Amino acid sequence: MDENDRTRDFKAVRKAATKLSLLTDDVRSAMLLDMARAFELNSSRIIKANVEDMEAAAHSGVQDALLHRLKLDEAKLAGAIEGVKAVAGLPCPVGRVRERRLLDEGLVLEKVSYPIGVIGMIFEARPDALIQIVSLAIKSANGIILKGGREAHRTNAALVEVIRETLDGAPFLMLLSSHEDVDAMLKMEGDVDLIIPRGSNAFVRHVMDNTHIPVMGHADGICSIYVDRSADIDLAVKVIVDSKVQYPAACNAVETVLVHEAVAARLLPRLKSSLDAYGVMIHADDRSRALMADDALVTSAVEDDFHTEYLSLQMALKVVDSLDEAIEHIASHGSHHTDAIITSDDLARRRFFDEVDSADVFCNCSTRFADGFRFGLGAEVGISTSKMHARGPVGLDGLTTTKWLLEGHGQIVADYSGRDARRFIHEDLPL
Amino acid sequence: MDENDRTRDFKAVRKAATKLSLLTDDVRSAMLLDMARAFELNSSRIIKANVEDMEAAAHSGVQDALLHRLKLDEAKLAGAIEGVKAVAGLPCPVGRVRERRLLDEGLVLEKVSYPIGVIGMIFEARPDALIQIVSLAIKSANGIILKGGREAHRTNAALVEVIRETLDGAPFLMLLSSHEDVDAMLKMEGDVDLIIPRGSNAFVRHVMDNTHIPVMGHADGICSIYVDRSADIDLAVKVIVDSKVQYPAACNAVETVLVHEAVAARLLPRLKSSLDAYGVMIHADDRSRALMADDALVTSAVEDDFHTEYLSLQMALKVVDSLDEAIEHIASHGSHHTDAIITSDDLARRRFFDEVDSADVFCNCSTRFADGFRFGLGAEVGISTSKMHARGPVGLDGLTTTKWLLEGHGQIVADYSGRDARRFIHEDLPL
Repeated sequence: MDENDRTRDFKAVRKAATKLSLLTDDVRSAMLLDMARAFELNSSRIIKANVEDMEAAAHSGVQDALLHRLKLDEAKLAGAIEGVKAVAGLPCPVGRVRERRLLDEGLVLEKVSYPIGVIGMIFEARPDALIQIVSLAIKSANGIILKGGREAHRTNAALVEVIRETLDGAPFLMLLSSHEDVDAMLKMEGDVDLIIPRGSNAFVRHVMDNTHIPVMGHADGICSIYVDRSADIDLAVKVIVDSKVQYPAACNAVETVLVHEAVAARLLPRLKSSLDAYGVMIHADDRSRALMADDALVTSAVEDDFHTEYLSLQMALKVVDSLDEAIEHIASHGSHHTDAIITSDDLARRRFFDEVDSADVFCNCSTRFADGFRFGLGAEVGISTSKMHARGPVGLDGLTTTKWLLEGHGQIVADYSGRDARRFIHEDLPL
Repeated sequence: MDENDRTRDFKAVRKAATKLSLLTDDVRSAMLLDMARAFELNSSRIIKANVEDMEAAAHSGVQDALLHRLKLDEAKLAGAIEGVKAVAGLPCPVGRVRERRLLDEGLVLEKVSYPIGVIGMIFEARPDALIQIVSLAIKSANGIILKGGREAHRTNAALVEVIRETLDGAPFLMLLSSHEDVDAMLKMEGDVDLIIPRGSNAFVRHVMDNTHIPVMGHADGICSIYVDRSADIDLAVKVIVDSKVQYPAACNAVETVLVHEAVAARLLPRLKSSLDAYGVMIHADDRSRALMADDALVTSAVEDDFHTEYLSLQMALKVVDSLDEAIEHIASHGSHHTDAIITSDDLARRRFFDEVDSADVFCNCSTRFADGFRFGLGAEVGISTSKMHARGPVGLDGLTTTKWLLEGHGQIVADYSGRDARRFIHEDLPL
């Protein structure tokens, strides 16, 4: 794309986003329902494009996990369309009054949610993600600039074509096709408000190093489960197995299991036989290895194993002497994504909740629950491990900012200074 | 400072911050009251250090505005101490449940506020700011690394000495003294969670360019007031004068005034005579200049004037043909800080509120109200013009992040997938 054309196009997205934000929520929700209907009517066109993407990817010999994500068949498309309808039905995320305060007689302050503006989203070769991201963008009245994984480019183009045909050209939406386009976007400070890169840590770092636009980092997920001395052993085995095997390629799958020495002898043999059934390779420290059957599915852990996001049927295992050691291990080895404790001790749960500094901190349930849909956010644009703005699964709320709106009748600050100064009332008003 | 010592000290701040976060709010508030009392008891020591700072600054010939900010006399210290007590009395900002949702029977999700961790704050030569920032950090249970303007170093050292004597060494607090220390801090990703630089745009940009730590930018403030065709003229004059002259060096002082052509002839002669009384130099466009007395306090505006933060008794003035032109001017010239409309037309106010993309958008009152204390936040660490995280005046809330806490009884994700999948309840529970 020519550089001037591109710059003009980026600026056009902002103008269109402003127009989108001035529509009512009813109109934006109707747009989503129209879009859902158009995907249904054009499903064969979309699936045909996906078949071509799948064939090309298979030819070039990509991994099975990528093919699995790339595939958009009838069932997966139907699920994504249900998702669009669900987002349409969510409460409007913009125009919500978060705070309302009487500063003085006739001087009322409100903190109100507004769209962020224009969001640049770079994501993997997963066409259903495009549907989810566009839905959230329309509902939250943001402009959206998309760059999907190149293996999905035919499917993405077909989806965007359908959206443009249905929503009057959808000028608030821009689909990038090259790395040069992405690099150009990273320079559009003032025209793009937020970049959300999904992908490897190295890619996220590359983006951060090459832009002055805020980046909502979606880093790797080294998630841990700590089995406390008071844990229910059955429950621990069930939760660890689900966290590891239910979808090992997900960022919220468990990678490290820490076991209190008081329950290690009871837990580990059972845990190993349960994981064996799924062919999980365990990287065990010496203390844990000594308590388990020694076979081809166990190997000695090295320090690196506790810093590794396997994203596959492997995990690291370690016996610890205390809750403190577990919390310390997670602080120094984890990625502040999702960590869980298995315990029946309220005090241990409380300490784990307060002291583990991660986006999602769970007790007695699978780490795989860390997800916008499961959390009830409708969908997600990603999971943030940053402490700024949005943390954990990011849905509609994370795509809004706020403005402070102050309405008066000629009040001036001079009246509130010096001798005989007026005093502020500062009374919180009902929302 | 030796590099290893410095690294060790940065890490010690985090450990101490975690301990601070595990105390109750009552204890942290009591610490603030102890600190306030200690400032009272040691006021002569603090003021003596400030007198030395003031003398040194006067010798080196700094500007009056800097001396004004640097000064910490009895009255200003008393005011700052009142501020500490006020912060102690605010509701606890951490541990607040922002959302609570029943995902399924016995599976409850909470979004809870937590401290951010360790905050690096670089601020101008204003010792009362140190008192305000430390108060907010303690109340919000964050560790704080401070670097104040060098002209204030004796006063800052005296203040920190009193804090350390009173609060058991105050290990959650670190005072930096050199640019090398600041550069070292910018590299402490993982040990410092947020940098808040106050100062010039160039300085904020320097910080952003040299760190991977999130930066809460506190950029320049080019604030505008637009006088609509339906404005009350008396009210417009009063609000513009206050916004310009009440404290011209503040970032929320008005720099540009836009006037609808329908009221220009009535407003401008009166506005000029009111501003003349304060010696305000007006940079006027041709249309506005033609409507005012031509004297030494008016000059012809050039394009640059509308991009200038004067921070002094000067302002830019322009006649516009419509609300649209005013909104467009603010979008292309302003700094998204604080902008106000003077109008008696509800629709114009509504459009200005919705379409002006700034942190603070006001109607019929002074731009100088954009301030954490006046907003009822207790105090502020600064004003953010970023759309991410906190926007506008940043008080205690802006110094917190959230965690998602999920408590179950062995729930696994496999039960919610495939055939006969359990359905989520997703019922919002009372907070």
